[in-house]
Amino acid sequence: MNNKLGKQTLQFLNTPQIIGSFSIVGEKEGKGPMAKWFDMILEEDTFGEKTWEKSESKMLKQAILSALQKSGRDKEDIDTILSGDLINQIMSSSFMARDLSIPFLGLYGACSTMTESLILGSVLIDGGYAKNVITGASSHYCTAERQFRMPLEHGNQRPPSAQWTTTAAGAAVISDHDKPIEIFNGKEANKIYVTHATIGKIIDTGIKDANQMGAAMAPAAVDTIITHLNDTGRTPDFYDVIISGDLGFIGKDIAKDLISGLGADIEKKFDDCGAMMFNLDQDTHGGGSGCGCSASIFMGYVIKEMKAGNINNALILSTGALLSTISSQQGESIPGIAHAVALTTKNKN
Amino acid sequence: MNNKLGKQTLQFLNTPQIIGSFSIVGEKEGKGPMAKWFDMILEEDTFGEKTWEKSESKMLKQAILSALQKSGRDKEDIDTILSGDLINQIMSSSFMARDLSIPFLGLYGACSTMTESLILGSVLIDGGYAKNVITGASSHYCTAERQFRMPLEHGNQRPPSAQWTTTAAGAAVISDHDKPIEIFNGKEANKIYVTHATIGKIIDTGIKDANQMGAAMAPAAVDTIITHLNDTGRTPDFYDVIISGDLGFIGKDIAKDLISGLGADIEKKFDDCGAMMFNLDQDTHGGGSGCGCSASIFMGYVIKEMKAGNINNALILSTGALLSTISSQQGESIPGIAHAVALTTKNKN
Repeated sequence: MNNKLGKQTLQFLNTPQIIGSFSIVGEKEGKGPMAKWFDMILEEDTFGEKTWEKSESKMLKQAILSALQKSGRDKEDIDTILSGDLINQIMSSSFMARDLSIPFLGLYGACSTMTESLILGSVLIDGGYAKNVITGASSHYCTAERQFRMPLEHGNQRPPSAQWTTTAAGAAVISDHDKPIEIFNGKEANKIYVTHATIGKIIDTGIKDANQMGAAMAPAAVDTIITHLNDTGRTPDFYDVIISGDLGFIGKDIAKDLISGLGADIEKKFDDCGAMMFNLDQDTHGGGSGCGCSASIFMGYVIKEMKAGNINNALILSTGALLSTISSQQGESIPGIAHAVALTTKNKN
Repeated sequence: MNNKLGKQTLQFLNTPQIIGSFSIVGEKEGKGPMAKWFDMILEEDTFGEKTWEKSESKMLKQAILSALQKSGRDKEDIDTILSGDLINQIMSSSFMARDLSIPFLGLYGACSTMTESLILGSVLIDGGYAKNVITGASSHYCTAERQFRMPLEHGNQRPPSAQWTTTAAGAAVISDHDKPIEIFNGKEANKIYVTHATIGKIIDTGIKDANQMGAAMAPAAVDTIITHLNDTGRTPDFYDVIISGDLGFIGKDIAKDLISGLGADIEKKFDDCGAMMFNLDQDTHGGGSGCGCSASIFMGYVIKEMKAGNINNALILSTGALLSTISSQQGESIPGIAHAVALTTKNKN
């Protein structure tokens, strides 16, 4: 049995299917250009909780349980939850999973976690090790800001290249078999299958400035895109969209420069969730970041446009900057990583 | 295709094989009762590095590369590294993987990480998604102590129930095909196969004292053992040893009480890495803990005894306490989890 293609790509011949998805975002994200794609926008970023960490955990739990509800499956049908977040010891995920009584695998890929969870979830389904899994990721501006940067109360000025950690979560139920026909926007929704995944390797170009995360991650995103295309023998033409996780405005420009040599019209179909999430006048400087950025846009915009038939083949890449406050304080550069997942509405089987 | 048994257990019919393993421990661990089983004992816990985090990362890298060397494979043969540790944003693992140019999946399961990595690595091999993977985990007393408890320089007194974070790392190369015959202790070594894995669910019994981690994790360990036996239809008799991760002296006693109802002589074959790692006179109080505790004992003692034929069937469980300093400060109880992996020298295929 060989389900590996080329150097880094897995192929899923049993076509795991995304049968339920949910995206939830905070107030600021709900005023941005992507607002119409999200399933739920918080009226208030505390989400009724007393601490920001509990707000984030509740948001992730909401995404997980709502994706489950939309999948038509029951909690008892779920074999495993795979999720992660940015908070030390992935507190948001652990406390999300605490009360659910479902086997749990915790992941840490910084902002690459959404595709990491989709990859490992798809492997479990495709290989017959599970029938239904839930994958997810979250981030929250207020938890990340005080953990990685400054106390919120400090009100410090942010440099122009800094990105804004998105308050958001996304979740997907992946299954080994169809659910009944779903009606979306008044007509039968396309089904969405996971066909390939490319596991990224760490690329570190020596950038040490934690306010330049887009620049630190862009080479990893491009490396994974090129590897994916080489491994699958596909050209950029195959995909309707190629969307990276959270490079933001600066990282997106760098990535576009790096992939322009691939020819075709890849630049036209390439976009980045960090550059998509906020309007320029929302004062986020470098654009969005955080696990929830790509999680909510992939589970909101991409999935819905695939259901509607406006996107048929998508390559989605969450990108991660594997730094910590300690690694920065110790003068280390920022390791970047990106994992890619290929989605299609065309099930060839 | 159905590779799932019962509620939480995966079966690996293509019998992924552990073809290389390595265990490395610190000075104190090297003076304990398990010393003879480890492949490498540090003369000095800094391992020549300027920060403890870099010492831990170097130790993990040493384990990974030495396991690779013992497997007879080359770096280019490795499809993916799966590893994790306790340090915020799994810094030890990310920086270990940074220079290796091998696809990387970061995991966080607290001290349950070694079996989590073995499970997901075995899935990748068994399902044909990879030919060779490296799995691993690490912990270091000096990184964990200052991150989770007190600055080392503070010299605070530890309560009698507190466990001692083990300075150790373990790694295993899992492969889809045999390596040439290995000579171990003068005769042909048994081959070691991964046959089953049971993914744990979170059990939280409400314990809030971070100095009672063994008690917090023991119910999760027992839940996973019972689920594994039910799912596989096996009795405790099937296994020569059943070894949990790092419950320590107190947690081990609690677990023994909880499993005594299972009948058979399970109590005689049950042990715990946290209780095995140190002598009582080494003043560790509650025994060992940390990802490296089970990683080094499983990859040292268990693997070597299986090669020698003194253990033929082993059920190994790393156990994790999914707390963080923030969750404790916010008054939350400690979520416990345990993942089990069944190893055998008897390949039925």
